[in-house]
Amino acid sequence: MTPLVNDTFLRALLREPTPYTPVWLMRQAGRYLAEYKQTRAKAGSFLALAKSPALATEVTLQPLDRFKLDAAILFSDILTVPDAMGLGLYFAEGEGPRFERPLRDAGAIAKLCAPDPGKELKYVLDAVSEIRRALGGRVPLIGFSGSPYTLACYMVEGGGSDDFRTIKTMLYSEPALLHRILQVNARAVADYLNAQIEAGAQAVMIFDTWGGNLSHAAFREFSLDYTAQVISQLKREHNGVRIPNIVFTKGGGLWLEAIAAIGCDCIGLDWTTSLGEARKRTDNRVALQGNLDPMTLFASSEAIRSEVARVLADFGQGSGHIFNLGHGISQFTPPDAVATLVDAVHSYSPAYHQDTQTAQ
Amino acid sequence: MTPLVNDTFLRALLREPTPYTPVWLMRQAGRYLAEYKQTRAKAGSFLALAKSPALATEVTLQPLDRFKLDAAILFSDILTVPDAMGLGLYFAEGEGPRFERPLRDAGAIAKLCAPDPGKELKYVLDAVSEIRRALGGRVPLIGFSGSPYTLACYMVEGGGSDDFRTIKTMLYSEPALLHRILQVNARAVADYLNAQIEAGAQAVMIFDTWGGNLSHAAFREFSLDYTAQVISQLKREHNGVRIPNIVFTKGGGLWLEAIAAIGCDCIGLDWTTSLGEARKRTDNRVALQGNLDPMTLFASSEAIRSEVARVLADFGQGSGHIFNLGHGISQFTPPDAVATLVDAVHSYSPAYHQDTQTAQ
Repeated sequence: MTPLVNDTFLRALLREPTPYTPVWLMRQAGRYLAEYKQTRAKAGSFLALAKSPALATEVTLQPLDRFKLDAAILFSDILTVPDAMGLGLYFAEGEGPRFERPLRDAGAIAKLCAPDPGKELKYVLDAVSEIRRALGGRVPLIGFSGSPYTLACYMVEGGGSDDFRTIKTMLYSEPALLHRILQVNARAVADYLNAQIEAGAQAVMIFDTWGGNLSHAAFREFSLDYTAQVISQLKREHNGVRIPNIVFTKGGGLWLEAIAAIGCDCIGLDWTTSLGEARKRTDNRVALQGNLDPMTLFASSEAIRSEVARVLADFGQGSGHIFNLGHGISQFTPPDAVATLVDAVHSYSPAYHQDTQTAQ
Repeated sequence: MTPLVNDTFLRALLREPTPYTPVWLMRQAGRYLAEYKQTRAKAGSFLALAKSPALATEVTLQPLDRFKLDAAILFSDILTVPDAMGLGLYFAEGEGPRFERPLRDAGAIAKLCAPDPGKELKYVLDAVSEIRRALGGRVPLIGFSGSPYTLACYMVEGGGSDDFRTIKTMLYSEPALLHRILQVNARAVADYLNAQIEAGAQAVMIFDTWGGNLSHAAFREFSLDYTAQVISQLKREHNGVRIPNIVFTKGGGLWLEAIAAIGCDCIGLDWTTSLGEARKRTDNRVALQGNLDPMTLFASSEAIRSEVARVLADFGQGSGHIFNLGHGISQFTPPDAVATLVDAVHSYSPAYHQDTQTAQ
């Protein structure tokens, strides 16, 4: 494999000195880009796009050709794993993801198995390899998965939900059923991420999009404990190179100490948590990723620059910060705003890395 | 006025000893009750129901006739204030509240005025007086309002929102416009709550439903500072009786220290925050209200009882806890589950009040 030209992102994840703060954006390959919409139209459907390694490679690289981003992230869907388990993923137009066979009765839950990523998810691994080749070492490639609990939300609800009534009824009334699903999911997610690492992912991220909707007690028992199982089973090296991991729990700001304790390398933060306070609370034991409010990108260039400056100052001096949004970029975002954001991070952040550079 | 038969709720708000933990539920008068749906049908529309003092009184008392609740809450809508400001509130079937004239341009914002509650909101004050009479001292009556920021969300967006893009664009690009709206709203909310107190409300609650969606920096500047203005302008006594207040910020668990510092008597908590930790963080300086996950009410009676026991144990010994859900009750809740909840709170909680009773 070609050596990395820009390894700033990986060094920041390991809290090693960097000349500036690296930046990438959750959902950076997506609908706010006209060229993405063109590829999506060519594919015919979102799933056809996600299942074609060539087209997934094309859209993964699109934002890198526009903006000086410091990482690429595999273009895929978080629901590939339950789809590979046989639940029948489909996208109803304007309604988001749905499953043909939601998982609700004890019989179906008993039969649930972790898929073999080399078979049912081979198209994802092929995409990872093809993207690595296409990147040619420009920036590192991030692999990802939904967390065991977040996947379970979609699997039990059969799609998105406002109140998570179905899965929470199971959680409170029949916790053993949900634990069985989560055990299978934890195994499946670990296998899936390890297969992505073997195919070429240089860092991996776990998206716990819905864990923050649980009560504080239920979060630990039904989400964090299973994310911890995944983390403990992940390959930490591949071909002698460290593979760092990131755990992002939207709405998880109250639980940072517990999240840091599962042994992850980096915690993703939404915009409700101060990076400076998070750094103190986690005692500098993990890197932090985030956390600009995605709605900032609808403001004036001046306002975007000033919010970028605020986020950088909030983290403060030293390495261990990866600049990102606090959640996925909105499909309505003007691309020029992203250019302003990336430029501001690269212009303003070297001032926060002078001490560490001098110390080398 | 008739003296109160049951003042447990008011005493708990002031952290005075009580024999048990009082309980009421946010949105306790609502669609999960068949008798509510009957009254709503009789009224013809939600707004007609909210604007009729006689019918508002009828639905306010309905849950008290079914369950041994320790407080009544005025049946009304949080958007009565912007409606009284002339924005034209209406309810599109199945779409939630909307305004005919959303507030977006500088001219309209400059003209915005706090309404005179005695005129434009007289129907609410009449409802408060009529409910007080109808209650005949059974339990205290809670008055309420949306917070200045939460009202502004609806006023600027023109209705509910997934991402609050319009108000946040104003917040980041033209903060002075939003500050002007929030100043008027703070004045309007203080006047409105004081008028409810004069009409007979024995406690007041401010619902900051959307403040938790702000970044940590923006929450203080655009939500909490204006809630603090309201709190500082509230009547603390009426006819020689203390009128306690409650501030509920959904998703505000990270900011409890700051919320407690504005001088409120009680903080409402959603289910993501531990009551025990909140009590330590606020140093027992405020009462705490909450925080059962509303989805618990879809579980078995056994599971409901065990979750009630967990919430009571989480707060622990002593006064200063008002049992509630962590958010409004779902319209799909089986009423029997509420009976189980209220019975469990009243059965299990005396054990947490023995020390304080002995100490009297």
